[in-house]
Amino acid sequence: MRHLTRIQDLGPEGVEKILAQAAAWKRQAPGPIFQNRLLGMVFFNPSLRTRTSFEAVMLRSGGHAIVLDVGNGVWKLEDRVGAVMNADRAEHIKEAAPVLSRFADMLGVRAFSQGGGDEEDEQDSVINSFRKHVTVPLVSMESAREHPCQGLADALTLRENFGSTKKLPVTLTWAPHIKPLPKAVPNSFLLTAAAAGCEVRVAHPPGFELHPKVRAEAEAYAKATGGSVTYTHDQEEALEGSRAVYAKAWGPATRAGHAPGDVAALLASYSGWMPTRRSMSLAAKDAIFLHCLPVRRNVEVSDEVLDHPSSRVVDTAENRFHVQRSILQWILST
Amino acid sequence: MRHLTRIQDLGPEGVEKILAQAAAWKRQAPGPIFQNRLLGMVFFNPSLRTRTSFEAVMLRSGGHAIVLDVGNGVWKLEDRVGAVMNADRAEHIKEAAPVLSRFADMLGVRAFSQGGGDEEDEQDSVINSFRKHVTVPLVSMESAREHPCQGLADALTLRENFGSTKKLPVTLTWAPHIKPLPKAVPNSFLLTAAAAGCEVRVAHPPGFELHPKVRAEAEAYAKATGGSVTYTHDQEEALEGSRAVYAKAWGPATRAGHAPGDVAALLASYSGWMPTRRSMSLAAKDAIFLHCLPVRRNVEVSDEVLDHPSSRVVDTAENRFHVQRSILQWILST
Amino acid sequence: MRHLTRIQDLGPEGVEKILAQAAAWKRQAPGPIFQNRLLGMVFFNPSLRTRTSFEAVMLRSGGHAIVLDVGNGVWKLEDRVGAVMNADRAEHIKEAAPVLSRFADMLGVRAFSQGGGDEEDEQDSVINSFRKHVTVPLVSMESAREHPCQGLADALTLRENFGSTKKLPVTLTWAPHIKPLPKAVPNSFLLTAAAAGCEVRVAHPPGFELHPKVRAEAEAYAKATGGSVTYTHDQEEALEGSRAVYAKAWGPATRAGHAPGDVAALLASYSGWMPTRRSMSLAAKDAIFLHCLPVRRNVEVSDEVLDHPSSRVVDTAENRFHVQRSILQWILST
Repeated sequence: MRHLTRIQDLGPEGVEKILAQAAAWKRQAPGPIFQNRLLGMVFFNPSLRTRTSFEAVMLRSGGHAIVLDVGNGVWKLEDRVGAVMNADRAEHIKEAAPVLSRFADMLGVRAFSQGGGDEEDEQDSVINSFRKHVTVPLVSMESAREHPCQGLADALTLRENFGSTKKLPVTLTWAPHIKPLPKAVPNSFLLTAAAAGCEVRVAHPPGFELHPKVRAEAEAYAKATGGSVTYTHDQEEALEGSRAVYAKAWGPATRAGHAPGDVAALLASYSGWMPTRRSMSLAAKDAIFLHCLPVRRNVEVSDEVLDHPSSRVVDTAENRFHVQRSILQWILST
Repeated sequence: MRHLTRIQDLGPEGVEKILAQAAAWKRQAPGPIFQNRLLGMVFFNPSLRTRTSFEAVMLRSGGHAIVLDVGNGVWKLEDRVGAVMNADRAEHIKEAAPVLSRFADMLGVRAFSQGGGDEEDEQDSVINSFRKHVTVPLVSMESAREHPCQGLADALTLRENFGSTKKLPVTLTWAPHIKPLPKAVPNSFLLTAAAAGCEVRVAHPPGFELHPKVRAEAEAYAKATGGSVTYTHDQEEALEGSRAVYAKAWGPATRAGHAPGDVAALLASYSGWMPTRRSMSLAAKDAIFLHCLPVRRNVEVSDEVLDHPSSRVVDTAENRFHVQRSILQWILST
Repeated sequence: MRHLTRIQDLGPEGVEKILAQAAAWKRQAPGPIFQNRLLGMVFFNPSLRTRTSFEAVMLRSGGHAIVLDVGNGVWKLEDRVGAVMNADRAEHIKEAAPVLSRFADMLGVRAFSQGGGDEEDEQDSVINSFRKHVTVPLVSMESAREHPCQGLADALTLRENFGSTKKLPVTLTWAPHIKPLPKAVPNSFLLTAAAAGCEVRVAHPPGFELHPKVRAEAEAYAKATGGSVTYTHDQEEALEGSRAVYAKAWGPATRAGHAPGDVAALLASYSGWMPTRRSMSLAAKDAIFLHCLPVRRNVEVSDEVLDHPSSRVVDTAENRFHVQRSILQWILST
């Protein structure tokens, strides 16, 4: 049985297959490939694009989706093994996952970082608890460590704009925010772009390092595909000549052990990292701008960048539909 | 591309077309006219009838609907141009509207008055921000200024009960409530009834005037259709001989500049405006009673009026289905 | 018009029919029996299994479901006759039930006990208000007094495991919890097992008696089917030789008039009632374990019981789907 909760489930070869299938089906829709298929979607966190695009994929392919919001009309769910469940979580994933597997043909789960730090995120306990206890294929709709559907949509946009991603210089730049955000999206862009053979440049202020295991995994993909990954604290250097600029806020590396007040001050001290047209002017003339959305305008990215013709944020959101159709078909195949 | 967010999008001629189509399809259902069509519904406010009737329209016509509750499983949305988004609204309509347009064939938005007063309601910024940024047809599911689907359902009920609405004497009467409610429903009844040629009498206590632009628009429709609009502070006078009594609570005209405590006292001072069977006895013998629902029994309208055979509140709710099927077909046509 | 909101709507004969149909259709699915059918689901309380299984039933049978969460995107609903609606409930069931009946072919309602005590639960005012005002068939998705879909799913599991339920010794045992839970599930297991001819043993601490009317109804079913019902305060005695152990927490009989603090102390004082493998060892060698879910692990039931091969909690959850398909077909007939 196939699951897709991390890029590692695909590897560079699987990434190629998903992207090729998604591109082909974007040109010509495959018809009712999910006829009589039911996707159960379990959200621990909010969503606009993810739930709409997954539901649209199912409905436009002859199938259906059921949407559940944990803690909002649905019992809160426990993931800890051996827990004495005497607090607010009324049901364990040990029951919820196999029960939902009896009603749906496949399940999707969204479970963001719970804010316990990078090591906890690396464990990714909620999605992994589902992975252990489901009896049908599982897809991640973003978990603590990764957001593979987003990474694949980003890569599809790169392919569409530049034909090939082989050695394509792309920059993932940290961006400011009012609070420390999870690292699933930057992790996934990094992993997918490396798996797609890009020359990936990651720029962030000191103290915002991605997890060593994520970086090692990206390095391995780059080695396999002829791509590369480099890191810098100098945003301008990273942008120079880049064909795509991916901006995303994320929180500091928790190994640094900041107090909450320090984090706010830290984030504020780097407000100059917000991409503007001036930043974009350092990139290649035909550079495109990417962001996963939602984006806080004039905090994380300036209006002028988002409203510029070089922005591909809406096209990339649409690509979520196309890669997800391809992903669901893949997890349903044996 | 067609949108329907205000009666002005239709004008008296368009109102006739929607009503005729709705009546015809109520007699004989048109079959799967929305096959492979997807309606995306975005709610900033609660709903019972609206979301159920729109979903039912789509499902019973071969299509599907996706329902999103803003701030409840979906990011809160910003509508202000140029906003520095450092508060609780994580996504801008500038992104949300075009993104949802990529997944759905048409969008519906419900965005009530935000309570900033009549001038702000007249701007209707949320629905108009969607209108500006969608790339598919848009339908209002009630906004600050209007609730056109309700107005059209009301008019359909009038037609069904009296054959013609030409010069039909109908009364829109203010009714009491525990809080100042938005004016979208009274505005829409007034505009639609005027566009349908009724002799509309509006009764409300002093200080509860509808917006001058809404009144001017109603006046223009009445002139075009041979109808009329009159205003009075005397409920009994307005009811006399009326064939339909439409009761609805709404807040005071904000130009009067009441303090919140004054408003509560003001509303309480007019509790005698609650329609009873005695009020109905002043109307014509065959007069019907209308309300958009939800209604607070024994505050806004008495049990005896709602439970009387002359009440058409449930029939009118059903007519939401019929006019909306007609409306969606209209916005999808070019 | 048929409704199913209590086992009394079926009686022992109807229970047999539902179970036989469910078992037959579990072996061979009946195809699109709900084509063009729309189920409206109204939830006053959370749900995982119920909403997913009902939605799955409709979608897998060619139909559709609309899900409404009262007080969460949908107006709060009033059920009291003659209420002056000046508080937080904006709409009366007198309107909501007939209006929803215009849009859907059948309605489902979940409305748990409101905590006002056993007599109030016996009145079951919310579900009965819907029952009075709907104009289409109504199914209970659990109300204050009963959860008939659960009772029928439990009985189907018993049949599947033991062929016949005639004189089958089964134990319903009270279990500990952090708060006093409603009695709908134990009531329904008792009523359905008695209607299916089981030898039902009910074990609970003193002061946790089920309502006399429920017990009398169970007694009448047992008399009609050759089954029996006995009560004890001795859990071990009740378990001895039992073929099925059904554990469920419920609150004290409110006739005892406990203060809230007393209830917490009372519940805590019986923590030894939590089923363990030692408890199960008292039952028959082939005994199965049942629970309706959600279950609080290591509070209500120990991990070792839930994770043991004799547990049928997931199978029973699946049976919700099968009995509900049969129930909906039954209420739609005639």
